[in-house]
Amino acid sequence: MTDILPVADLVDQHCHGVLRTELGLGTFEARLATAGGQAAPGTTFFDTQTGFAVRRWCPPLLGLEPHCPPAGYLARRRELGVLETGRRLLRATGVTTYLVDTGLRGDLTGPAEIAVASGADARELVRLESLAEQIADTSGTVASFLANLAEAVHASAASAAAFTSVTAARHGLEPDSGPPSPGTVRGAAGRWLAGRESERRAARTGGGGPSAPYASLDDPVLLRHLLWTAVACGRPLQFHLHSTDPQRLAGFAAATAGLGSDLVLLHSYPYHRQAAQLASVHPHVYADVGAAPARTGARAAAVLAEILELAPFGKLLFSSGAQGLPELHVVGARQFREALGRVLGDWVGDGAWSRTDATRVAAMIGSGNARRVYGPA
Amino acid sequence: MTDILPVADLVDQHCHGVLRTELGLGTFEARLATAGGQAAPGTTFFDTQTGFAVRRWCPPLLGLEPHCPPAGYLARRRELGVLETGRRLLRATGVTTYLVDTGLRGDLTGPAEIAVASGADARELVRLESLAEQIADTSGTVASFLANLAEAVHASAASAAAFTSVTAARHGLEPDSGPPSPGTVRGAAGRWLAGRESERRAARTGGGGPSAPYASLDDPVLLRHLLWTAVACGRPLQFHLHSTDPQRLAGFAAATAGLGSDLVLLHSYPYHRQAAQLASVHPHVYADVGAAPARTGARAAAVLAEILELAPFGKLLFSSGAQGLPELHVVGARQFREALGRVLGDWVGDGAWSRTDATRVAAMIGSGNARRVYGPA
Amino acid sequence: MTDILPVADLVDQHCHGVLRTELGLGTFEARLATAGGQAAPGTTFFDTQTGFAVRRWCPPLLGLEPHCPPAGYLARRRELGVLETGRRLLRATGVTTYLVDTGLRGDLTGPAEIAVASGADARELVRLESLAEQIADTSGTVASFLANLAEAVHASAASAAAFTSVTAARHGLEPDSGPPSPGTVRGAAGRWLAGRESERRAARTGGGGPSAPYASLDDPVLLRHLLWTAVACGRPLQFHLHSTDPQRLAGFAAATAGLGSDLVLLHSYPYHRQAAQLASVHPHVYADVGAAPARTGARAAAVLAEILELAPFGKLLFSSGAQGLPELHVVGARQFREALGRVLGDWVGDGAWSRTDATRVAAMIGSGNARRVYGPA
Repeated sequence: MTDILPVADLVDQHCHGVLRTELGLGTFEARLATAGGQAAPGTTFFDTQTGFAVRRWCPPLLGLEPHCPPAGYLARRRELGVLETGRRLLRATGVTTYLVDTGLRGDLTGPAEIAVASGADARELVRLESLAEQIADTSGTVASFLANLAEAVHASAASAAAFTSVTAARHGLEPDSGPPSPGTVRGAAGRWLAGRESERRAARTGGGGPSAPYASLDDPVLLRHLLWTAVACGRPLQFHLHSTDPQRLAGFAAATAGLGSDLVLLHSYPYHRQAAQLASVHPHVYADVGAAPARTGARAAAVLAEILELAPFGKLLFSSGAQGLPELHVVGARQFREALGRVLGDWVGDGAWSRTDATRVAAMIGSGNARRVYGPA
Repeated sequence: MTDILPVADLVDQHCHGVLRTELGLGTFEARLATAGGQAAPGTTFFDTQTGFAVRRWCPPLLGLEPHCPPAGYLARRRELGVLETGRRLLRATGVTTYLVDTGLRGDLTGPAEIAVASGADARELVRLESLAEQIADTSGTVASFLANLAEAVHASAASAAAFTSVTAARHGLEPDSGPPSPGTVRGAAGRWLAGRESERRAARTGGGGPSAPYASLDDPVLLRHLLWTAVACGRPLQFHLHSTDPQRLAGFAAATAGLGSDLVLLHSYPYHRQAAQLASVHPHVYADVGAAPARTGARAAAVLAEILELAPFGKLLFSSGAQGLPELHVVGARQFREALGRVLGDWVGDGAWSRTDATRVAAMIGSGNARRVYGPA
Repeated sequence: MTDILPVADLVDQHCHGVLRTELGLGTFEARLATAGGQAAPGTTFFDTQTGFAVRRWCPPLLGLEPHCPPAGYLARRRELGVLETGRRLLRATGVTTYLVDTGLRGDLTGPAEIAVASGADARELVRLESLAEQIADTSGTVASFLANLAEAVHASAASAAAFTSVTAARHGLEPDSGPPSPGTVRGAAGRWLAGRESERRAARTGGGGPSAPYASLDDPVLLRHLLWTAVACGRPLQFHLHSTDPQRLAGFAAATAGLGSDLVLLHSYPYHRQAAQLASVHPHVYADVGAAPARTGARAAAVLAEILELAPFGKLLFSSGAQGLPELHVVGARQFREALGRVLGDWVGDGAWSRTDATRVAAMIGSGNARRVYGPA
């Protein structure tokens, strides 16, 4: 049995806030699933790697035994209250800077609250699709929408740690990876704004309508315009891959080479090897190395080791991908720290790596690369 | 070295019967390959993980040393006779219920014979494509074919454990995942029946013709109709993925959500992580966890561990995928049992899981989930 | 801890020559990346699995400590000189036959020089695309080009160990996997030769132009013609997959079954399991098992074990994939030897394989299969 190499402080390059309300067993369980929704009849999301990882790491932080039953844990959580629970959990992650994606709907804490609860730094990640929807709500014409959007993206670039996009991987950006022409953009913006307006009217005149009354950004031309506007700002741009093959972004990666903005691939599992490979080809492409270990529990070390096969070690960044439950911030950080320590410790034990190199690489992946990519606040 | 966790009785959710005839070395060897066919000149299918796993587990059950040479094993097999060999092997699997796909051509034993030989329960899996071919053989017109087919599917649903489809993944079900219109179905049925009739006539008037004289179900519209007819019955529906990406079935999975029939993804390796991911997204989608360990021999634990990364533990079902040789039923069960016991034992040893949880999950995957999904006979 | 099984002499079924010039730190570092190009600012390609593997295996061969800093290693390298360094490194690989792809541009040593430096045998691999470009340079008309090309391919077949193609996987060969008609080929050849001629003229009359002045073989019809011409010669045909899914070649594999030429899939990682699966389906398809371990350093055993899941052991061939640096020949051979020995040693230790079988399989994959496929010089 080889030593587990110690991994120092972390920068969590992508997470969300935590819920402000007290949670029952059912609400808590639903938040354990990545895809949300219901567990199959006769099953529970507690019976997942995430559920087991929460039960491993979190009860001791609230004064309980590891792996205690969920009901007991939830009772203790309510006893402490949501604020104190969040405080205890977030302070146990070892994360010194959180980058917080604020574009998710729901009653979640923002960067300032995360900073207070955790005693760490927190910076904002601006979700491009949410930004476009906000601008659409307050812009009267196509021309003003496009002008305001450009201004808003540039203004965000001054303060945000990075941009994020959740729809790019779904649409794919092939085969036209370059910026669309101004005329095409105006046309697409016009159609999208008109669509939103008619949905808004339908929602007003009756009909329950969907919970999200206005169309989210589902126009590929407008999305491409938005990505190119963001790329021009020089801030890193994070892509949620939603378990799709990053090859879909290969054309965009090739088209944006040398422009000065870094691209960061998030949530690529089970295509994490492909993400690592893309990061090995393009100097400006980076791969996330934390969200998959956070979701795969006892398999975290094995998954993390696969990402370490082809990616240069200077191109890997940690994140928890946590949202809603501070337990997920804990699990993300603990799983990553233990998995990386175990993988690198084994390699040192085998003589494949020197201890000096392993310690240096652990610090790079845990925080050093993120500090270089995202810079100071 | 951690303990191997014991895994109790198994439900084999997908296997086939065994050959009734004595086998020579060559016939036996050909049955070791998933894809069938010939080994390359100068090579043998005994030199595969399956071949080595057969030689590990089976000789001791017939009174020989593990890893004894194939010729010696085949001689002992002939000495005992095909019936006694089958009896000894099937009784050593630890399987208490076999679900037997009876749609494969060839002289294979059916569920009743499997039950007698093994001393276990056996139930039938009805292969939709074979059912459609049988109905076509006995129906005169398009209208009677479609009426008889609907009746046959519903009648099967009353007794069969589940339906299986072997062609859905090959055709893919995108982009039209919904049920086809009645007119489209009539048109497709007419063309398919006419095609069969002309092949039948050609076979009658001369020419050796292929061994399977009538067209198998290769019409995507008719197949889609058949799948939707089956889904309406409320029985589980198993899909052979034939090593294709289960993403091909994502549209069908989304379209059948909430209708009350479960979908089970078989033979997804090397896309087993994608299958597990689909099972994590949809409450009614399940993933098979046995056929890949059965085929990957010494790698069974590693492959099985990958399936356990994302799938909720209530969504995984064991199968051997065995066909033709009772040796493959043994290998499927033994490999799975040892692999699961080893993987979970390691996690308990690491402190990642509690022993109580591991024992419970082992029972769920080995048999509990199958009993819930397939219900009583 | 189980024993590492010894692996005897190797046939490197695919490598390139080494650079004839002395290298500085930057030139050396650039050669460590598969994709070439620049490392991201603030990072170095020494911080990769390949970089760490070079620092593990090579310094002791030049009288230094393992894992010594790159600058010290490069200083020692210059002290010894490029010839002596190459001699020391190549003689430490344990490779007894190198198959050398001579189609790469750059000042690289050829098979004869490799043989002298290494004290081993070396044979040529003829790259089809380079051959077509050479013939185009010396043929005046479409008719003479096609006649000369056919003659050159057949002449190469008499002496070369095998053919290689670097563009087939990029183009894909679907959906038309058969040989193109003579008329189509003449048309494609005419267009390609005319394109080359006009580029040549443009390069002559001014304009910087690209560094490779004449179009490489990027016409899919002409490429397909070339592949079918090669297949007709009966020599093995190697495909560089460039990290693409080998499924792209499935149609070509099916179309060439039984014609007497073997197909060898190179560089399939991260699709190595798919390559192994294709090798399990077709008797004439083989999978490479060395280039991925060479590139994944401390992960070599894990990656190699994945390839050993589905491929029959008679269908796997070792290569280093090395180019430019003799360090990469060392790393390829050492990583493979240690990884295979460790994987098979573990399986023997577990009782999954017998020691006799493991020793036999190690010799097959290391050299026996290659000797059977490529035959004597």
